[in-house]
Amino acid sequence: MNYTIDINTDIGEGFGRYTVANDEKLLDIVSSVNVACGFHAGDPVIMNHTVKKAAQNEVAIGAHPGLADLIGFGRRKINVTMEEVTTNVLYQLGALNAFTNAHNTTLRHISPHGQLGHYCVQDQNFAKAFMEAVKQFDASIKIVALDGELAEEAKKQGYNVVKQIFSDRAYNNDGTLVERSREGSVITNFDEMVSRTIQMIKEKTVRTIDGKIIKMDGEILCIHSDTANSDILAEQLKDELVKNDITISPST
Amino acid sequence: MNYTIDINTDIGEGFGRYTVANDEKLLDIVSSVNVACGFHAGDPVIMNHTVKKAAQNEVAIGAHPGLADLIGFGRRKINVTMEEVTTNVLYQLGALNAFTNAHNTTLRHISPHGQLGHYCVQDQNFAKAFMEAVKQFDASIKIVALDGELAEEAKKQGYNVVKQIFSDRAYNNDGTLVERSREGSVITNFDEMVSRTIQMIKEKTVRTIDGKIIKMDGEILCIHSDTANSDILAEQLKDELVKNDITISPST
Amino acid sequence: MNYTIDINTDIGEGFGRYTVANDEKLLDIVSSVNVACGFHAGDPVIMNHTVKKAAQNEVAIGAHPGLADLIGFGRRKINVTMEEVTTNVLYQLGALNAFTNAHNTTLRHISPHGQLGHYCVQDQNFAKAFMEAVKQFDASIKIVALDGELAEEAKKQGYNVVKQIFSDRAYNNDGTLVERSREGSVITNFDEMVSRTIQMIKEKTVRTIDGKIIKMDGEILCIHSDTANSDILAEQLKDELVKNDITISPST
Amino acid sequence: MNYTIDINTDIGEGFGRYTVANDEKLLDIVSSVNVACGFHAGDPVIMNHTVKKAAQNEVAIGAHPGLADLIGFGRRKINVTMEEVTTNVLYQLGALNAFTNAHNTTLRHISPHGQLGHYCVQDQNFAKAFMEAVKQFDASIKIVALDGELAEEAKKQGYNVVKQIFSDRAYNNDGTLVERSREGSVITNFDEMVSRTIQMIKEKTVRTIDGKIIKMDGEILCIHSDTANSDILAEQLKDELVKNDITISPST
Repeated sequence: MNYTIDINTDIGEGFGRYTVANDEKLLDIVSSVNVACGFHAGDPVIMNHTVKKAAQNEVAIGAHPGLADLIGFGRRKINVTMEEVTTNVLYQLGALNAFTNAHNTTLRHISPHGQLGHYCVQDQNFAKAFMEAVKQFDASIKIVALDGELAEEAKKQGYNVVKQIFSDRAYNNDGTLVERSREGSVITNFDEMVSRTIQMIKEKTVRTIDGKIIKMDGEILCIHSDTANSDILAEQLKDELVKNDITISPST
Repeated sequence: MNYTIDINTDIGEGFGRYTVANDEKLLDIVSSVNVACGFHAGDPVIMNHTVKKAAQNEVAIGAHPGLADLIGFGRRKINVTMEEVTTNVLYQLGALNAFTNAHNTTLRHISPHGQLGHYCVQDQNFAKAFMEAVKQFDASIKIVALDGELAEEAKKQGYNVVKQIFSDRAYNNDGTLVERSREGSVITNFDEMVSRTIQMIKEKTVRTIDGKIIKMDGEILCIHSDTANSDILAEQLKDELVKNDITISPST
Repeated sequence: MNYTIDINTDIGEGFGRYTVANDEKLLDIVSSVNVACGFHAGDPVIMNHTVKKAAQNEVAIGAHPGLADLIGFGRRKINVTMEEVTTNVLYQLGALNAFTNAHNTTLRHISPHGQLGHYCVQDQNFAKAFMEAVKQFDASIKIVALDGELAEEAKKQGYNVVKQIFSDRAYNNDGTLVERSREGSVITNFDEMVSRTIQMIKEKTVRTIDGKIIKMDGEILCIHSDTANSDILAEQLKDELVKNDITISPST
Repeated sequence: MNYTIDINTDIGEGFGRYTVANDEKLLDIVSSVNVACGFHAGDPVIMNHTVKKAAQNEVAIGAHPGLADLIGFGRRKINVTMEEVTTNVLYQLGALNAFTNAHNTTLRHISPHGQLGHYCVQDQNFAKAFMEAVKQFDASIKIVALDGELAEEAKKQGYNVVKQIFSDRAYNNDGTLVERSREGSVITNFDEMVSRTIQMIKEKTVRTIDGKIIKMDGEILCIHSDTANSDILAEQLKDELVKNDITISPST
């Protein structure tokens, strides 16, 4: 049996001389990235460099548009209009697309960042406004989303929705992520992360926080880049997956 | 004999609730526009609205990228690197292009704004860095530029360079614009503006500040949008041209 | 009998080359101003110019801090923390105070702008976080506020709270402003504005939207600066008040 | 004999969730800091936290105003007007002063950041515009500056100018710093840094890059915070100075 997983992370989230993660190293580890587009983080120089290196490494590239909120890193609720959502996402998609074109590659997917992501999962109006931008931009891009309004809306419109799994997060019995505020929501033991991840990839199941075994079938394994030493952890996890005969490759 | 001119202006140079000109009215008058792309002015909501209305009115759309300098309106010298020039222009081109695609129209031309424009006219490195972005973006866009390094570089690379003429500016004997600091550099008498403009369009000549008649052949007539009542002046000038059997139409 | 009113308006709400109102003329008409401090609008050059002219004209100066939201003009809900509220207000107060010191005048009052103002009227936590900044800054400044949480909190802390009246807004029977969405909420007839204003100043009463006469006693008459021709309207209103033996002067 | 030195570093140069150095640890090591004021770096939350901890640690606080250039970290040449220099510095001074007041401490000194600093050292107009802001703000603050136009102007106006020395930089025979582009301009050997620093503090001399011993008498020892592990290096250097009977204390 041949197992494959797409290891994915957010990338290019610096600004000017500021940096968040060791992007250089992460781009040598992962198989796909979500590139910040200059609104919650990122700038044209960083975007160009990131897309160039991702293209060289054959890392699949996705757009990671966010709210226009640099000081809040796109994580704050802002009562934007639906017109702002559509136009801001379209703007960021177009901007990033110029760089993927320039480096002879393509935008494979899109994944909304931070609070924009939360809005799109929870609120149908946001999901529609977001998908309006995607539709205006291009019909063939994939949507990377948690279960929720955005995934529903995208499927309804005929888009390919890609499901994410997480090495370091506990699940509820219904397959949703356990709220970060609840104890045990984040898996911190490395061996446990590895065994859970292998189980999700090979058996398509996971043990929930309540001890139940549920189905958990995702194409993209998300690695958080904005924690300390995220690059080292990502590398160790990848090594374990490879040792267990799992191929790391962008989903197609 | 059939005369045609393309009346052009900068547009979409507001930000949030700020505005510079009466864009709504100007879009009913001119035949082509240079759309601000969010760096020296403009934002996604304004860009979307501007492109939508321009497309409806069959006004030809061009990109008007500037330095990332909102407080200076892109008019201040900033010692940007050539990497910043290329990536900032590429980013802005991509962003605007998303809106022209969304409204089923195209980017006809590009014209650098303010200090970025001055740099590109005067400095070959800037001209090359600017054209690098244009080349990475698309081979078919027209370059609107004054005589200078950018026009030279664009021609060398096989691009179509479109020459601008000005109703309200005096010319030197070599065809360059008289510096604004010199007396008589700006034509303020409306009748004189009209007669000079008609002469440039019909006879392809102009009387210089020193009284000499020189050749002056341009496809695009530039109207400044950022002066008081620019929309009213533009309308009156257009009316006079039409009365004199000049067709207002985007150059092709 | 001697009547006096303090005509007040928001001022300095441009940014770079953008402007909102005819500040030069308004500074010749009003007796007090709320100066934008660079977060929702305003910049150091504008602040310096505004404070200088206000000081020359003996116009009383107040701080008008807002949320850090230039593109939304400080009018959007943003889920800021209380730490952000206190530190952002303190920062803006300090910055403006440097200009009043430089021009040998003082900050008489403070009035929160836009959504920050709404938050402070409606939410006790915001009112406390705002007053924490005021307290850290200076004990003697006046608080200009509508009835609500901020006015309560300020009084509780021993601050002088100054009540505003509005020429162009209808009132409910309880003295609150009629919601803008309701018909009749904004008075557009000039003669009606004048007669209502004179009644509020001389008789300390106003006729509500339901026709009841209620007590309405305020020290500061607010003029909206961000509507078309606000300067002309302000001047005409002032002329009428002066003709009716009302003295225009900062409240002390 | 009793030796004392003031170890100084730039601090608070993050923005939102971005950070540059380990500020927490640096504030436990140094005796004085230059606090970013929100234009080239820093924001109100960071400024408040930084000033609070500096006050608790009895670290002397100085203002570190910069050009309004977050993406360039205040290091790019921008052709600002002298009015912009004065008003931008005054604004930043006032803002920071609100935080030192709030935490019952004072601004001891001011030191311009990055390109603003270079302009002030090299250009008399900038030095005058900068000192105009200082004068408008307060007569008693100290000026921390390299030899040059700013130091000259400050002395001429009766200000106390404090001279900096550098552990890790080579000097020319005239006491100026060797250009970074020249080989040997930066001292990287730790033992050499220590011995040079001790010599500068105890003997008030230094060996130049050409081998000459010159007078070098400064009150403030500058530590660069924006290099990797700056906090660890600073701590080791401090330990060596203390072992050599040098007291670390803010200059008064």
